[in-house]
Amino acid sequence: MTKTSFAEMPCSLGRALDVIGEWWSMLIIRDLMVFGGSRRFEQLREGLGISRNILTERLRKLEDAEVIARQPVAEGARRQEYHLTRKGWELMPVMLAMVQWTERWREDPESIPLRFVDLRDRQPLAEVAVFSHDGRKLEHQDILPVPNTPEAGRYLEAYST
Amino acid sequence: MTKTSFAEMPCSLGRALDVIGEWWSMLIIRDLMVFGGSRRFEQLREGLGISRNILTERLRKLEDAEVIARQPVAEGARRQEYHLTRKGWELMPVMLAMVQWTERWREDPESIPLRFVDLRDRQPLAEVAVFSHDGRKLEHQDILPVPNTPEAGRYLEAYST
Repeated sequence: MTKTSFAEMPCSLGRALDVIGEWWSMLIIRDLMVFGGSRRFEQLREGLGISRNILTERLRKLEDAEVIARQPVAEGARRQEYHLTRKGWELMPVMLAMVQWTERWREDPESIPLRFVDLRDRQPLAEVAVFSHDGRKLEHQDILPVPNTPEAGRYLEAYST
Repeated sequence: MTKTSFAEMPCSLGRALDVIGEWWSMLIIRDLMVFGGSRRFEQLREGLGISRNILTERLRKLEDAEVIARQPVAEGARRQEYHLTRKGWELMPVMLAMVQWTERWREDPESIPLRFVDLRDRQPLAEVAVFSHDGRKLEHQDILPVPNTPEAGRYLEAYST
């Protein structure tokens, strides 16, 4: 089975999806986030109920993209664990925005297994939202896509005319 | 080919991915966002370079999840277009968080085709980030996952011990 690669897409969303958009990848990242940033292969496999083959493939791809890295579980140990890099941790707003979106719309809030709270006061987090550079909260109608290349300009013509 | 469904997962990320996590789905949503919220089937197909079959399947799934809806292009017209619902528009922070994440890390910023700006002053948007309920910007180490169900409590034990 062949699947179109998004890696060569100029658009940044395509590039992001090429790295994190495969089935299971975000759940692996979420598990690493929930468990303080690092987990061993078997822990991920058991926690997610994912096959070894798929997990191996997804981890390799995330490692290639420098979202995760491997290190020995202890100094000199042969066993390794996977941990989020800074680039990986920076996916926290993506993950939380998805979680909050579901939770605003799901019909069974009582069965939400985990909540993410502020470590300092254990209060729920604010909703992840879009703000202007000077701190105004923006709604979708306040946000404008502008072409950065001639190709994008042509692509957008259908919209502006 | 069978693929695990995430629809029955209790976790909200799994539920989100069940709706928007399939290959192409977020790009369809992005295209609708870029073009003011609505597009016709052929416009989506040409813009994305996606096959009719896959586009049909993805649109149906997004429609079932009430992320998009169909309406006639004009009153009484037979031709239809797809438009984002409020639930669909609420994916804007997810989409922008992914775009910004890529743009912080990509090595060819000069080839970014589109930028999203503030309609009012055409300035770049702030980075999508996580805030506490009282407006403190939170880093990943300030965010704590807490179990909401006994099952999640058991799952998290490995983390807390």
